[in-house]
Amino acid sequence: MPYTTRMSSEPELRRDPICGRSVLVAPARSGRPVALAGANPRHRTNGDRHPCPFCPGQEHQTPDELFALRAPGTLPNAPGWALRAVPNMYPAVRANCAAHGSAEVLIECAEHFDSPTDLPTDQLADVFRAYRERMLALATDARLEHVAVFKNVGAEAGASLGHTHSQLIATTFVPDLLRAELAGAEAHFAAMERCAFCDLIARELASGERVIARTERFVAVAAFAPRFAHELWVLPVAHAPRYEALTDSEAPELAGLVKRVLVALDAVRERPAYNWFVHTTPLRAGAPRHYHWHLEVVPRTSRPAGSEWGFGCHITTARPEVAAAELRAALPPE
Amino acid sequence: MPYTTRMSSEPELRRDPICGRSVLVAPARSGRPVALAGANPRHRTNGDRHPCPFCPGQEHQTPDELFALRAPGTLPNAPGWALRAVPNMYPAVRANCAAHGSAEVLIECAEHFDSPTDLPTDQLADVFRAYRERMLALATDARLEHVAVFKNVGAEAGASLGHTHSQLIATTFVPDLLRAELAGAEAHFAAMERCAFCDLIARELASGERVIARTERFVAVAAFAPRFAHELWVLPVAHAPRYEALTDSEAPELAGLVKRVLVALDAVRERPAYNWFVHTTPLRAGAPRHYHWHLEVVPRTSRPAGSEWGFGCHITTARPEVAAAELRAALPPE
Repeated sequence: MPYTTRMSSEPELRRDPICGRSVLVAPARSGRPVALAGANPRHRTNGDRHPCPFCPGQEHQTPDELFALRAPGTLPNAPGWALRAVPNMYPAVRANCAAHGSAEVLIECAEHFDSPTDLPTDQLADVFRAYRERMLALATDARLEHVAVFKNVGAEAGASLGHTHSQLIATTFVPDLLRAELAGAEAHFAAMERCAFCDLIARELASGERVIARTERFVAVAAFAPRFAHELWVLPVAHAPRYEALTDSEAPELAGLVKRVLVALDAVRERPAYNWFVHTTPLRAGAPRHYHWHLEVVPRTSRPAGSEWGFGCHITTARPEVAAAELRAALPPE
Repeated sequence: MPYTTRMSSEPELRRDPICGRSVLVAPARSGRPVALAGANPRHRTNGDRHPCPFCPGQEHQTPDELFALRAPGTLPNAPGWALRAVPNMYPAVRANCAAHGSAEVLIECAEHFDSPTDLPTDQLADVFRAYRERMLALATDARLEHVAVFKNVGAEAGASLGHTHSQLIATTFVPDLLRAELAGAEAHFAAMERCAFCDLIARELASGERVIARTERFVAVAAFAPRFAHELWVLPVAHAPRYEALTDSEAPELAGLVKRVLVALDAVRERPAYNWFVHTTPLRAGAPRHYHWHLEVVPRTSRPAGSEWGFGCHITTARPEVAAAELRAALPPE
């Protein structure tokens, strides 16, 4: 009965409906004598350097660009850009080595913004289009099986620089969590002949209790079994196995929705550090009927400890139905 | 070829030999402009209260004790104890509720020590004996399937109070990571008719490159595929499926070894925050030939980000062979 919900303050075990991950939801724990050190983890990007290597005029501090949106007539690796992808100077994978792959940084704006919500919606739409462009470009290397696209906001979430940026890590293997999710989705399809995510969306839209916001083609929901309080997912409403199929007209709609729910998250959780990541079908796996791309946003609203690292059992304090109501109430106007 | 190792600075993909977890080892990343905020995360237990609720004389600040080592003639829930187990005031599970179970705190000493290495070896041996006693006591509740025993040291590792303590969370389900490890061990046994951990120990002792220290009955090794730099495991050398079978005479030997490697870890990584946790056969699973209890120590030497939370792909900077050499060189005398 994964979708039974309880509204008391009793602890409750929930399992993610796709991958089966266990989460203990224990609202009473929110009274513990602990919180994240520092009131505003977002600003503790203690690796910040001056001048910022991601700002215009500092292009010599990064490797040569792989992709950019530029004003006509400007030169590569010089000012005049609005968005830039460069190789990561501290790569976790590297071309033609034991861990073949590509590690890239996508600098999302020329302005020294420290939050993706500072971007105008059109500029955030360009970020989502750039994800697609880089994934398509990386797919031409036949050795690569997967592109992990993610974003770290705030030092507590692992960001080493404040200037808002995303990362791509392309690998010759499909990462563990994605394999687990694919396996769960495949098992669901084998049993039901329906996509597990399409089913999830239908249930969420029918009940409404975890829906935060929706547009014509996208919906944002509080995760049913959140690893962190106020974890949320953004999904295309219609079945869509591959992120790379995002159209130019969908990008601003997605960007607008993501921006609104992040503004709400910033208001409700006082600008938390967070990660977001794109889960999509691996490069060589076609367009399966059982998998459905989505964006997960994981705010660092607690510090994982022995239960999480030792046993994979997350303990979280905010009931997702309450989190969704709080986020809905904090949404900015469209 | 999980046990091929490379000594260059190239990134390398490693998989845990038991559960298959992926780790990218990328030594060059250690130059990144980031580190953990604050030089000494161990001390940032910002939830510390005065007077400390775990100190003698403050027994009224905790629920009634479940177990204690006490001086003769002293009363429960009053001073005179050397070690005390009490219910967790902020439980993730609770008796007879939707998430039935027991959440306990084991206060390891009357002194306000903030590190388990401050305990004399005999006192640390009592901690390991107390783990066994509480596991045996919890096993009498037939509804429980598993007892997670772990320890959080330092705020960065999720500790809410500085006074050194462990936690037990007993649940009606076997947690995800333990199930994955059990499944890996079972598959290994099915293929090889040998315990995967016994095989691992034999290989480690034969090569020696990841061995940190050993006693007659226990060995400490750097994890082959570490989630965090300087992650280490302590295992009984002979096959031993259940932690609860730890004998009174083994406890000081285990405590002495654990203390020595933790002193070395404190020296090499400048007193990092860390978690340790006991992986042992679930309560109702007998004494299988394929599973072997062990203690894992996970230091918080980096901040997991989008790659870890989004994809389950850990990125770590210290090659385990180098970590083992560093730890060996920093071992205190026996």
